[in-house]
Amino acid sequence: MEEDQSLRAAGEPAAEPGPAPELESKNEDDGVEDPEDPESTGGGNGISSLEQPLLKRSTTLTASHLAIVGAKVSHIESLDYEIIENDLFKHDWRSRSNVEVLQYIFLKWAMAFLVGLLTGVIASLINLAIENITGLKMLQMVTLVREKRYWAGFLYFAGINFGLTFVAAVLCVVFAPTAAGPGIPEIKAYLNGVDTPNMFGAPQLIIIGSIGAVSSGMDLGKEGPLVHIGACLANLLSQGGEGRWRLRWRWLRYFNNDRDRRDLITCGASSGVCAAFRAPVGGVLFALEEVATWWRSALLWRTFFSTATVVVVLRGFIEVCRNGRCGMFGEGGLILFDVSDVTVRYHVGDLLPVTLVGVLGGLLGALYNHVLHQVLRLYNLINAKGRLAKLVLALAVSVFTSAGLYLLPFAVPCTPCDAVHGAACPTVGKSGNFKQFNCPDGFYNDLASLLHATNTDATRNIFSTGTAGEFRLDSLLIFFAIYCVLGLFTFGIAVPSGLFLPIILMGSAYGRITALVLARFVHIDHGLYAVLGAAALMSGSMRMTVSLCVIFLELTNNLLLLPITMFVLLIAKTVGDAFNPSIYEIILDLKGLPFLEPKPETWMKDLTVGELAAAKPRAVTLQVVEKVSTIVEVLRSTAHNGFPVLDRPRPGVSELHGLVLRNHLMAVLRKRWFLAEKRRTEEWEAREKFSSTELAEKAGSVDEVQLSPEELDMYIDLHPFTNTTPYTVVETMSVAKAVVLFRTCALRHMLIIPKFQGLEISPIVGILTRQDLRAHNILGAFPHLTNKRKVH
Amino acid sequence: MEEDQSLRAAGEPAAEPGPAPELESKNEDDGVEDPEDPESTGGGNGISSLEQPLLKRSTTLTASHLAIVGAKVSHIESLDYEIIENDLFKHDWRSRSNVEVLQYIFLKWAMAFLVGLLTGVIASLINLAIENITGLKMLQMVTLVREKRYWAGFLYFAGINFGLTFVAAVLCVVFAPTAAGPGIPEIKAYLNGVDTPNMFGAPQLIIIGSIGAVSSGMDLGKEGPLVHIGACLANLLSQGGEGRWRLRWRWLRYFNNDRDRRDLITCGASSGVCAAFRAPVGGVLFALEEVATWWRSALLWRTFFSTATVVVVLRGFIEVCRNGRCGMFGEGGLILFDVSDVTVRYHVGDLLPVTLVGVLGGLLGALYNHVLHQVLRLYNLINAKGRLAKLVLALAVSVFTSAGLYLLPFAVPCTPCDAVHGAACPTVGKSGNFKQFNCPDGFYNDLASLLHATNTDATRNIFSTGTAGEFRLDSLLIFFAIYCVLGLFTFGIAVPSGLFLPIILMGSAYGRITALVLARFVHIDHGLYAVLGAAALMSGSMRMTVSLCVIFLELTNNLLLLPITMFVLLIAKTVGDAFNPSIYEIILDLKGLPFLEPKPETWMKDLTVGELAAAKPRAVTLQVVEKVSTIVEVLRSTAHNGFPVLDRPRPGVSELHGLVLRNHLMAVLRKRWFLAEKRRTEEWEAREKFSSTELAEKAGSVDEVQLSPEELDMYIDLHPFTNTTPYTVVETMSVAKAVVLFRTCALRHMLIIPKFQGLEISPIVGILTRQDLRAHNILGAFPHLTNKRKVH
Repeated sequence: MEEDQSLRAAGEPAAEPGPAPELESKNEDDGVEDPEDPESTGGGNGISSLEQPLLKRSTTLTASHLAIVGAKVSHIESLDYEIIENDLFKHDWRSRSNVEVLQYIFLKWAMAFLVGLLTGVIASLINLAIENITGLKMLQMVTLVREKRYWAGFLYFAGINFGLTFVAAVLCVVFAPTAAGPGIPEIKAYLNGVDTPNMFGAPQLIIIGSIGAVSSGMDLGKEGPLVHIGACLANLLSQGGEGRWRLRWRWLRYFNNDRDRRDLITCGASSGVCAAFRAPVGGVLFALEEVATWWRSALLWRTFFSTATVVVVLRGFIEVCRNGRCGMFGEGGLILFDVSDVTVRYHVGDLLPVTLVGVLGGLLGALYNHVLHQVLRLYNLINAKGRLAKLVLALAVSVFTSAGLYLLPFAVPCTPCDAVHGAACPTVGKSGNFKQFNCPDGFYNDLASLLHATNTDATRNIFSTGTAGEFRLDSLLIFFAIYCVLGLFTFGIAVPSGLFLPIILMGSAYGRITALVLARFVHIDHGLYAVLGAAALMSGSMRMTVSLCVIFLELTNNLLLLPITMFVLLIAKTVGDAFNPSIYEIILDLKGLPFLEPKPETWMKDLTVGELAAAKPRAVTLQVVEKVSTIVEVLRSTAHNGFPVLDRPRPGVSELHGLVLRNHLMAVLRKRWFLAEKRRTEEWEAREKFSSTELAEKAGSVDEVQLSPEELDMYIDLHPFTNTTPYTVVETMSVAKAVVLFRTCALRHMLIIPKFQGLEISPIVGILTRQDLRAHNILGAFPHLTNKRKVH
Repeated sequence: MEEDQSLRAAGEPAAEPGPAPELESKNEDDGVEDPEDPESTGGGNGISSLEQPLLKRSTTLTASHLAIVGAKVSHIESLDYEIIENDLFKHDWRSRSNVEVLQYIFLKWAMAFLVGLLTGVIASLINLAIENITGLKMLQMVTLVREKRYWAGFLYFAGINFGLTFVAAVLCVVFAPTAAGPGIPEIKAYLNGVDTPNMFGAPQLIIIGSIGAVSSGMDLGKEGPLVHIGACLANLLSQGGEGRWRLRWRWLRYFNNDRDRRDLITCGASSGVCAAFRAPVGGVLFALEEVATWWRSALLWRTFFSTATVVVVLRGFIEVCRNGRCGMFGEGGLILFDVSDVTVRYHVGDLLPVTLVGVLGGLLGALYNHVLHQVLRLYNLINAKGRLAKLVLALAVSVFTSAGLYLLPFAVPCTPCDAVHGAACPTVGKSGNFKQFNCPDGFYNDLASLLHATNTDATRNIFSTGTAGEFRLDSLLIFFAIYCVLGLFTFGIAVPSGLFLPIILMGSAYGRITALVLARFVHIDHGLYAVLGAAALMSGSMRMTVSLCVIFLELTNNLLLLPITMFVLLIAKTVGDAFNPSIYEIILDLKGLPFLEPKPETWMKDLTVGELAAAKPRAVTLQVVEKVSTIVEVLRSTAHNGFPVLDRPRPGVSELHGLVLRNHLMAVLRKRWFLAEKRRTEEWEAREKFSSTELAEKAGSVDEVQLSPEELDMYIDLHPFTNTTPYTVVETMSVAKAVVLFRTCALRHMLIIPKFQGLEISPIVGILTRQDLRAHNILGAFPHLTNKRKVH
């Protein structure tokens, strides 16, 4: 054996005479060298190679990932969802007693319970804070307006909003860049196998940031941050905490793997949706339809348990806060926008206007996605200029929002109160459909009812049923226009923000406008049209169906509305899909997160993994008993996380022994478990020295380990650390099938083995990772496929 | 090359010195030779080998699969969900124009629509028939009772029921054995990749059988048959019909594959549930949680479209039938058991009795599963005696049911009517809570209200709210007892039958009994307790959570009940899971359907696929250009459906070229596409002769093809037919991981390749199929693992 041959080349992929892939790097004249390697692989030697075309360089990603929306992405790694079957882990399973297995099961359920409990409590506290802050702010502002001190009112209103935004933005800009934005795209990517670092660290900052941002009256919701908080809690619980506060309880070691963490984060995400909309089934389905990549029945059940816990907690808080015991919090019951008092009687003739709502909703949703995409790219450039730029942007949006919300109600005339509403019209300083604002007694300002409220209250007002003439068309048009503008320009700023409520607000306004325009043909209640409009726009932008349907069902508590909601959602999604991808996909793409799509492209059937491997640098392999110096060199010179391990048990026969992870190599180096002579160790030797818990810890950098020349000259036996059962594909496998395999089995590395069996053929052709299987990257390396793409 | 070596042995799995598997066949002294091969594979030479331990011989399956419940299983094959990438199919994709792709997409949606439409119409017609037949029957019977002609009443009642059962049973026994039972387990198996023949052929017989069986008053529901009907419709639509009526429309050829059929059958199954319970979201979730094995977001959306269509159709029928235009049909609206008029106010203190309902529900459910299992095994023996025995059994159950339903109401005293109910109490001859039956005026017979109604009406009565004192405890106990007995003894007879309603009836009685017993501590309405009891028993027996929750939500239209229903469902499932598997799993196991469980057993981590392959007969392989006589011999002597194809492109190098399917070999033989000399053909030669549509057809028997000695001496080039990208695993892969791979990628065959690379090593170690990866079969071949199983 040739131990000194440090970077052994894998055998040529044995002459498959397919079309020669074009290896000219398109990035060469790019000039910019990305400091963070997205997904380091065992298959290419890092990012700086000329032969590295398999890396996405979208023009959107001008300088750094940090530029984009709230800077959630820095160094991207993949997650190990695969079961690592090496000697040490196998020994760990076998030695687990029944009691330990029961501990594990019990803990899984206890964690799901805790995630639900904490998310519920935190969501209730956030609501409490937001409603009280907003309520007090509005009360004071209205008092100033009643005293005709309009300028003082504006300065007060805008000043408070400015301060709240400042708090939220400073938190996100200085302390926790990952707290900005909705967090849902990153969670979606995490559950797809992409680890965005620092993503799940600081729920307390997101909580404060979200309270500040929502209370400041900006056009954003708390549902995105709540989902993010749920995921953070799940992550922290599974690790026993963060940093030096970390609990190192023995039971917790079972959870120190990416698989269990993934399951728990799914629970956290659904708890978040459930807490935001008080929709337990909707939360589960949201996680299932939109967020999760892999799903099992067992997970369905556990997620359901978490959301059930959340609902019980929310109900408990509502009971406690009944009768004004929590300040201005607590109105509205468990159902957020109850429209169950309406008897829905619709006939086949109603299908036409409802279809119109769906089609227009799809068009508007697609348009919204398109324009938001452009705005985010613009914000990208601004945010890239530094922290101050981010802060100024957020504060500018806040001032603009305050101005819009305060000034616009002056533009509409006052509406006389209808006698049937009695004391409910007009109201001063409390929530309700008929705010007096600047109007004389007996009149109300309908636009103020919508604009001078929390977004949740505004939605409740616009959804309210039996109120055909309550809102004037011009007020609704103004409302719609201002919320379109705000929805587009608020989302990208550096505060925790959710997408649901802005879209619901726009959609409900659009629905009510449609109802007013169609009034002579339409028999359904205007409030219900607002609900349908909101559903249509949501579906047109987010492209979900079943989960949205159930969320709307749980929001409105009207089962008879179900068939018609389904109909609208399906139409809007179909129309929207004809134009562009869903908003979450757009954001994922903008952030450069290497998300694996569920369906391979058609042209991938025409390419084999062997051709793909040939377009990559040769795989970096190790011998099963390897020199320390070689391993150190390999770890230094590459950023790969997995290395194929080869063996040559007897002359003329070579063997692919398995795959060893960087983590495990680092653990060996740190413990200095070196051998003086080149030999295969006994199983007990490694077991004495290493526990599976230690192997599961994340590795540091190789430069932290200082080795003497003598140590560098020694050997390491990789047998105990090698995963002997990596997933493999034969080089003739089409990329389409490989992508399906990679995604369905949640892999991180996939080894390519030769189709031929014979002497002098290397047992490995190459190694594939997530980045290599992304359509965009493959097209970069095989531009001729782009044409095929158009044909198909 | 040695073309005459017909059954070439694969190389020895190169000396992995693991524990030698025990090859002694346990079936040798069994005597019985099963005439139907369950899942023929390319890896063992049929079933009659002494070395064939990988075949399940449960003691339940005494003589034949035909014995069990309604005889739905005969020759079991696996389905090809894998994408076959051979030259011909590849050419077909590449040549598809954009128009054809659009046609395909359009057709997929059109089919989903048609499935929903037809299921909705058929479900409405079934309801119409059942309610009218039952109504007329009851009217006449009550008239006889009012005239005190008790014996005549009984004979009339039992006679009509006997006749109706006779019709249903004769259909199932003589014409369509697969129509018996609920059909859901077979559909579940189909979506897992197990094809039960004749399963999806005759919806008209199921329709008539279901009408007869349900109208005859037996304790069974129409939901199972409706799901089955939905699946039949889906299957027929995708094939363009059955037998000689089959439509051979060009567009339909895209659907002639197992994948698209699977998707459509999923739509059919959810449409069926939706039609049975008028629960569109519940139907989708039922398919997702219980029935389907693989799931994609795209499928979620399409299923949702189908159920939306069903709901619109159902609503349409209800509108049309309003005001008694359809006889006795049409009462009840879209919500089946509406309890939305109850304001649910529950507090933390209510959790205790509700927990009790959940725990007892779980215990009862598990007990029900256990006893039903025993009854089905007994019925198994009876049904095995032939058609007459089946018929007699069904009729006996019918007579017993009639006697119970008719006679028991005489055993309870009459209850005086409460004045608040006015004219609603008592009623004669129409549905209602207060049937007079044998009582004097002003009194009602509460047990008759429950027993003399369709099962749906009985459920509605027992669910009805605000009726605390309406049912006497002894009546409820009698009702519960009789329905426990009927529920156990009705299910296994040879008529189309559903499991939901019997369990709901039992559960609702049990819930109301609990409410009566706990009356002094309990504040929730008795009707709601009936709902919770039904949910608990369902969950205790069927072990579903989210889908049941949504179905109950849609059945009862009370969203505030949701948190408490979730709670009950989770408790009941947890308790039930501690005792035995779900009822569907029990039935699947009884029927001997080779269902692949989602989770591998722990001990599977300790076995490699190489060891598994060594315990099987050697794989039967073919050369890439093979003699006709060899192929004919292989096809005759084995029942395998896939054969690895080997090649030896140059000396010292061998190659695993791919896998060829029996179907495709048969297509070549039928077309006599033989070569005079041994050569590799050009691509156009095969393309000229074969279309991908022809290859997709199911093959007949090899004996149908008569070949002359000259033809037998010719060659076949397998290049165009070989799937060059089969899924492979290295022999060191653990069985646990292989099972996960097999199931998640929906495979039929998985090839095992050697870990070593060298001269004289065969490129294939073995081949695995569904049967080889089932826990039971593996334990048969490796009994020492059984002990490990207990340890873990």
